Parts: sequence; structure tokens; C-alpha cells
Amino acid sequence: MAIFEVSEYKNRLKKIKERMDKAGIQVLLATHPANLNYVTGYDGWSFYVHQGGLVFIDREEPIWFGREQDRNGARITTWLKEENIYGYQDDYVQSLTKHPMDYMSDILKNLGYEKAQIGVEMDNYYFTPRALNSIKDNLPNVKIIDANRLIPLVRQVKSNQEIEYMKMASRIVEKTMETAIDAIDQGVREGDAAAEVYKAQISGTKDFTGDYTAIAPIMPSAERTSTAHLTWTDRKYKMGDVVLLELAGSKHKYHAPLSRTLFIGDPSDELIEIAKVVVNGLNQTLAFIEPGITCEEVEEKWRKSIASSKVVKESRVGYSYGLNYPPDWGEHTASLRPGDKTILKPNMTFHFMPGIWLDKFGFENSEPFFITENGCETFVDFPRKLFIK
Amino acid sequence: MAIFEVSEYKNRLKKIKERMDKAGIQVLLATHPANLNYVTGYDGWSFYVHQGGLVFIDREEPIWFGREQDRNGARITTWLKEENIYGYQDDYVQSLTKHPMDYMSDILKNLGYEKAQIGVEMDNYYFTPRALNSIKDNLPNVKIIDANRLIPLVRQVKSNQEIEYMKMASRIVEKTMETAIDAIDQGVREGDAAAEVYKAQISGTKDFTGDYTAIAPIMPSAERTSTAHLTWTDRKYKMGDVVLLELAGSKHKYHAPLSRTLFIGDPSDELIEIAKVVVNGLNQTLAFIEPGITCEEVEEKWRKSIASSKVVKESRVGYSYGLNYPPDWGEHTASLRPGDKTILKPNMTFHFMPGIWLDKFGFENSEPFFITENGCETFVDFPRKLFIK
Repeated sequence: MAIFEVSEYKNRLKKIKERMDKAGIQVLLATHPANLNYVTGYDGWSFYVHQGGLVFIDREEPIWFGREQDRNGARITTWLKEENIYGYQDDYVQSLTKHPMDYMSDILKNLGYEKAQIGVEMDNYYFTPRALNSIKDNLPNVKIIDANRLIPLVRQVKSNQEIEYMKMASRIVEKTMETAIDAIDQGVREGDAAAEVYKAQISGTKDFTGDYTAIAPIMPSAERTSTAHLTWTDRKYKMGDVVLLELAGSKHKYHAPLSRTLFIGDPSDELIEIAKVVVNGLNQTLAFIEPGITCEEVEEKWRKSIASSKVVKESRVGYSYGLNYPPDWGEHTASLRPGDKTILKPNMTFHFMPGIWLDKFGFENSEPFFITENGCETFVDFPRKLFIK
Repeated sequence: MAIFEVSEYKNRLKKIKERMDKAGIQVLLATHPANLNYVTGYDGWSFYVHQGGLVFIDREEPIWFGREQDRNGARITTWLKEENIYGYQDDYVQSLTKHPMDYMSDILKNLGYEKAQIGVEMDNYYFTPRALNSIKDNLPNVKIIDANRLIPLVRQVKSNQEIEYMKMASRIVEKTMETAIDAIDQGVREGDAAAEVYKAQISGTKDFTGDYTAIAPIMPSAERTSTAHLTWTDRKYKMGDVVLLELAGSKHKYHAPLSRTLFIGDPSDELIEIAKVVVNGLNQTLAFIEPGITCEEVEEKWRKSIASSKVVKESRVGYSYGLNYPPDWGEHTASLRPGDKTILKPNMTFHFMPGIWLDKFGFENSEPFFITENGCETFVDFPRKLFIK
């Protein structure tokens, strides 16, 4: 059983088909697991083999196709009729001679779409050059159109039910961040703190448990905080360590990411100053955000609010996020950076993440938020500051 | 600091370059995170943006390239000299007009490889059609060669140090499986059992902690065991539940996968019979395995050993595994199935995984093993049976 009303899936499809129509696409192949989930409800860790959803401009329901052993997973988790669930035999898996997209091409042939204009995701994980070549070889008369952002652009604006799931995830990440800050201390192995973080992420709250998150807990310490994506080691925390915590909660694969920084001991004046500047800039920027302004204006506001400090932040300061699977909770559409002219609309959801990574250490204090009718609202209630132990 | 001696990386490169030479490849682009790790040591959760390793037939060290904010991660985790670590600016990330492979192409141009024969991974996650198009557009005179399995085929045969890491992962998965079987009981929320599983995976043993695994704990119950890749829900376990547990331990991203099945209450005669047949078939097959035979012969032995029963297993019964990142610990090279003529050699490592998924429930009892000089040795010491609670 899918986790939304069927009417919600139909509403999504309506918006997707409007975009397909505009782009001249008759069949849309959704290979990104979040896009597949978005149109069918499918939820399984089977994205390591080729699978996908087919959305047809002139058919009501999408088709799910995947490995035969995952077909019951589609029966259980999607809203689709039996006739729209297709499983390929196991000899298509990681074969040198056959490809699951050969099978998918046969579906299209059998349904009469062998000359259609087909939208594919040209720059998403899980759709490979060989997959594309299989389609071209099997369906020489189709026209391939890049539809990389078609579904993600619809995903960008959440329904109220999606916002609810993101709020559930936010309750989980609050508990998870608290657990992390409690667990980390001098003499504790980084991996033991990470273990508590995972336990908190999954056990969730008394009312609901959590799902796996699209990114593992990012929690480097000391020198490893000078970069953005290192996890834990066997090392024991020491007096004088900076610890970055980029954690998330997830419910039904809807996320709540959150970053904070913990210092063990007496932080340097430099770190205290950076924390002050970043939190102040974050607060000013959040107060400024409202529907109708653009992503680049948000970044500009942030940049001006830290302009009188020594803090320099060259990478983007945030991005659209929500429903997702490994390896990323970001939606790969809007970014808070110069040049991004996406106009903010109610129920868009962003992770404001002004991470600072210097040569010897870093500082992070982020906020996930959603756009409201006249401003924005943060998802998470957690102090914005440098935590000191 | 990389986790192997530099000599081990050099030894890997020697074998890789021999294969490159044979295939007429002058530059090999490693985009799969496990392949990138294998040649450079790089270990960070940054594979959600484009990055890679370049192996040159005529240069000693590979080049790492990735996002600027991950460059310190490369400095910290690889064995490469500073001059071989390249970071691209943030405006390449998820841009509609620029692509990280434009940047990579510039590296090749500057080094004089604009007419080289370049090996790329045509059917791995993380290398997209748009990435390939970027290379073709920027380097119109290169020749593209599919090198999808080039590095994985070298990875297939492990060094003794790699086997050691896989043994460490095996200690973790033993503890994790024990924890799971202890935690699961009627009235317990599935998510709370999963939380204990995660904690066990990461806290590891008193001597070392664990890393994140390439696949989340697969632990469906009841009807959800009829398929291969569902995880947990908020549901509470009930009397009469079958619970499948496909779990893993990981150390330095080297894995130990393990599957067992737990029944709460009195199992049906059918399930007891299936368990008997599968474990018996597994034991017979393991006793048969030795260097020199082929993967398909292993599968044939398995099939014959269950032939007198009602158990039918159509999908492959195992695959090569080891170092990996989400979404899969499998190496996508050898599979234990008809037609796979890979000859077993000492220090190859397989997950023997004869999962049975029927209409209403499933049964799993797997074993990871490695080929020795005259047979095979299982990595894990855990009873092979249907667990009953």
C-alpha cells in the first residue's frame, strides 16, 4: 500500500504530464529512485539494479518495471494495478549480453511506443550510458529527450502531506542531534558516537520510527573537519577537537537534514567569531526569505549579512531537498547561489547550509525550512550556536 | 592517510595497467566510488557529485578530481601527491551550463591526452550519459572504450590485507546478527529492532568500530518477506511472523554480508522443510568449492543438491563482493549462475546467497566465503538454521 492517497499520485501525474506535453514527451522514463517513488510509491532498496517507472502522456497509470524478485515489493508498496507491474528475469542482471533496458524497450514496443519521443534522465545516478544505448539500439525510431529535471521540478513544491512527513523527520533529527551532542566526549570512540546517532535516527520517537537517510551521518573531527564529507573513524575524541555534525532524520524517505558544530574544550576566538557571524547571517537571511524572491537573492542577502566579517563562503549556501534515496537528499534543482533564478513558492523546502571549511577546521550550522504564504518557517527547533563541552 | 601501504596501491595499478594495455586504453576514468577508492584510497561520502580517478598508462600516480570542498578529504584519505589532487569550483555542481566532466576534460587537455583512448565505466552508477557527452564534446578526438569491468575484475582477487579487513567486518556482522535475533520479538516495533542493528553495525567490537554498509539492513517481516529488498516499518512483530535478515558489517568499506531467517512462534512444516533443504544444499555446495572450478559449476552443484526437494531457486545464488559503497556491496563481475565461466582463484570472495522468495513468505540463509589454496573458507561463524523464537 502506497503511503499517499491515490488522488495525490494522480495530482502529481497531472503536473508531470503538463510538463511532458510542453516538452513534447510521450513517454517519460523515471529511473532515479526518488522519481520512481514519486510516481508509483515504490519503496525498496533495489536501485542497485536497473529499474524504473514509465509515465505515458496517454495512459492513466504508470508502469513499474524491475527485477522479478522485486515484483512483490512493487505489489506491496505501489498504488498500481497488477497489469502495470513488470518483472524481468534474473539473467538480465549484470549481464554482458542482455540489459534490463532491452526488457523495458520490449514493453514500449508491445504497447506501440516504438516511435515515441522518450524523456530520460541524462544526469542522474542509476541511468547509465549503456542503459541509454540499449534503448537506442532496441528502439531506433524513438527520439530521446533529456528530462533530467522534469519530475524533480514537480517534486520541488510539496503537498501538505509531504510537509507532514518532513515534520516527522524533523522530530527525529532533533532527537538525533541531541543524542550526538550527548554522546560525543573526550575518550569516546567516534564510531561509538556514530552508533548512537544511527540508533536515534531509526528508533525515532515513541509515535513513529525513522527510515534510513540518503546520506550517512557526516561527523568528522579535528583535521577531518576541514572538508565536507568525511565520516567517523576508530579515533577517540580529544580535548581541543572540533566535531562537525551533519545528520538527518527520515520518514518514508522524506528528510530533515541538520548541521551543528561541537567543540570539546575551550574554542579559539576565531571559531567563536565564525560561529557568531554564521548564526547571525543565517538569522538575517531566514528573516528575509518570502515567496516571490529568487534563490540568488537569498544567497545575496546571506553574503551581505556576513560581508563585514572575515568569513568567506564560496560554495552554494543551500539547496532544495525532500524525498530521496542514497546517495543524496538534495533534489538537484534549485540551489541558493548566484545565477539561480528559481522563484520561491509556498511549500518549497530548502536546506540552508552555510558550511565553512577552512584549512585546519570547519564550522556548520544549518537550518531546513519551507516557504509559507508570507515568509518561511524552519522545520527544526534546535539552538543555533556553537556547542561546547 | 590511505589505509593500505603505498606498495599495495602500486601493485593494484600494475595489474590495472596491464589490462589497460591489453585493451588499448591510455587513460582510465574510474568513477565508481569503489574503483576510485581502490586506486587512490579516497574515502568520503561525496559520490553524489561527479568525481573520479584518472589512471594513466604512462604516469606513475593517478589523479583525483572532485569538488573543491572535498579536496581536503582527498589530501587526508589518499596516498597521492598534492600535485595530483584537483578540485573544481562549486558552480560546476548540478549546473545546467557547466559539467564537472568539462573540468576533467581540461585536465586531460593540459596533460596532452586530448587524442587518447579513454576507458570509461559505461554501466556503473555515478557515470551518466551527460558526463559521457561532456567528454565527447570537450575532447572530440579521444576514442571512448567501455572499461566497465576493468578495475572490478582486478578487485575480484583480494590481497591478504583486504581479506583481513573483510574478517574484521565478519566479526561485526556476527555481533550484528546476534543483536537482531535478540531484539526481534512480538510487540517490538520493526524500527526499534533496526535501530539496534545499526548500533551494532557501527559500534563494532571493542577493538574496532564499523563503517556504514553499502546496503541498508534488509529486514522485512510477514508478507513483506515475499520479496527481496524491503526494509522495516512502524509495524510491531506478531506471533507467526517470518523475519528475513540480510545484514552486513563493514570495515574500511570492506563488507561481510550475512542472511538468516527468524520465525516468531511455531513455523509451518513447509518453512521447516525449506530451511532444511537450503542449509543442506548450502553445506554440500561449500564442501564442493575449490580453486579451478567455475562459477556456473558452483551453481550447478547447488541446483543438484536441492533437486530432490520442492525448493525452486531461479535467480543467481551468489556473487563476488568486497570493497564498496552504496547502493551495493556486490562487485558486478562474477555471479554464481548458469553461463558464468569465471574460474575460482584463491582470495576471491563471494556471498553465497540462495534467497527463496515465495508468494507469501521467504527464507534466507547465506554465507560469505573466500577461496583458499585447496577449497574455500567461510568468513562468518554463525549457526546455519531457521531461528525460532
